[in-house]
Amino acid sequence: MSSLIRTGISLDRELLARFDRIAAQKGYGSRSEAIRDLVRECAVSTDVARDRVVVGTLTVVYDHHRPGLTEELIAAQHHYHGKVLATTHVHLDARHCLEVIIVKGRASMIQHLADHILSLRGVKHGKVVMTTSGKQLK
Amino acid sequence: MSSLIRTGISLDRELLARFDRIAAQKGYGSRSEAIRDLVRECAVSTDVARDRVVVGTLTVVYDHHRPGLTEELIAAQHHYHGKVLATTHVHLDARHCLEVIIVKGRASMIQHLADHILSLRGVKHGKVVMTTSGKQLK
Amino acid sequence: MSSLIRTGISLDRELLARFDRIAAQKGYGSRSEAIRDLVRECAVSTDVARDRVVVGTLTVVYDHHRPGLTEELIAAQHHYHGKVLATTHVHLDARHCLEVIIVKGRASMIQHLADHILSLRGVKHGKVVMTTSGKQLK
Amino acid sequence: MSSLIRTGISLDRELLARFDRIAAQKGYGSRSEAIRDLVRECAVSTDVARDRVVVGTLTVVYDHHRPGLTEELIAAQHHYHGKVLATTHVHLDARHCLEVIIVKGRASMIQHLADHILSLRGVKHGKVVMTTSGKQLK
Repeated sequence: MSSLIRTGISLDRELLARFDRIAAQKGYGSRSEAIRDLVRECAVSTDVARDRVVVGTLTVVYDHHRPGLTEELIAAQHHYHGKVLATTHVHLDARHCLEVIIVKGRASMIQHLADHILSLRGVKHGKVVMTTSGKQLK
Repeated sequence: MSSLIRTGISLDRELLARFDRIAAQKGYGSRSEAIRDLVRECAVSTDVARDRVVVGTLTVVYDHHRPGLTEELIAAQHHYHGKVLATTHVHLDARHCLEVIIVKGRASMIQHLADHILSLRGVKHGKVVMTTSGKQLK
Repeated sequence: MSSLIRTGISLDRELLARFDRIAAQKGYGSRSEAIRDLVRECAVSTDVARDRVVVGTLTVVYDHHRPGLTEELIAAQHHYHGKVLATTHVHLDARHCLEVIIVKGRASMIQHLADHILSLRGVKHGKVVMTTSGKQLK
Repeated sequence: MSSLIRTGISLDRELLARFDRIAAQKGYGSRSEAIRDLVRECAVSTDVARDRVVVGTLTVVYDHHRPGLTEELIAAQHHYHGKVLATTHVHLDARHCLEVIIVKGRASMIQHLADHILSLRGVKHGKVVMTTSGKQLK
């Protein structure tokens, strides 16, 4: 169970007024929620830097006409069997596919999988995002 | 159809040797493929900076126990009806869900959708990635 | 004069405990100071995104043996006369110089100056940082 | 001495045409120089990731009215005696100073110095940039 506690911070009046405007423009309903997100983002970055278990999503765009590439992509994901949680495939146009591979594991392992897939011939672009596995962020 | 042409670049011998080692460690099969990826990454960043049509994947982790949140997430995606290509949902633990929302549109629109969703109460963390819609990158 | 006011935020107990540890490891003396820095960073990023007046530092490494380069660097800085606040020069080795150019102006102008200088032949590497001009951050 | 060698890469015709336009807009005089910069940037990022010796510039904005802060900043720099190559100071307004500290050493040491200085009370904002020490990039 999550247990919310209240803490106080002191901030310059004008800086706080600016932050309130920024948070409102981004759509936040309260200052507390906006500051919580800054704190959570800091916690996630630290998990990644310390190679903790995180969830990564690897977005790749590739040319499915490239011979052998589809097999290589599947083989790479099977090599990390048990780590890949799900894969989503979108047909962008007659030739290009977008695939999102969702992986759970240490940040370094996810980076390694990303390096491997992004270096395959026929993979045009890709990026990896690391986020929380949920447990650490209440 | 893609038409490959060959171009020459001059590079310092030692710098090239270092780059070859880095590319090999990342798993690239050839120097040409590794340099192509640097050029494509530069092209994608430019598309984003110029607010061209790109494909974005928004990764969010949220607490599905938060009342009303699931409805708000669906409503936000419906508001961008026709732009959201697919959504994948993973149950991380009893409480936390990971959702990857794949959107096609101008970079600014995707950022706007991301700001809106990330500011919802109960959304714990999220990140957006922008990539090519395929057409621009051969 | 700065006028500090106190605001309250509610945070999950465990998340707060983690953040306190992270802040301590980074050397912060208080939680309030660590959260203030997150808020200030958010304010600076917003200034940059909105093309407000910020201060930029452009770090470049170049080969001073390249004919004409020193003159081109000086010419580029004079072209932005009144915007360049200071320049520091460090002799890294017999051939390479590091120069830090401190500029005040709109984020887009600073980016333009950076693009121009980084594209000069003989400039080996460089990066630009945008920070506050002081006024906005109390 | 630098020894330039020529290598060939094959690229899609349209992608190359786009890259040429981007390079021209950034001010590059030749395609070769623009690609060299992508390769150098890749080499510098790898040096940072592997904790090699690099040069860092730490940009900080602080309030010089904060009692004791100037002494703490000087003490922090002396603690890394022999690593700090130069420091430049700019008076932004009556209250705020910008300081650029140029340091040479392993990436982790530079990050540590940055964490320490950025966590000092009265330091409003700061960012660190890592670049080459010159030797690795011909």
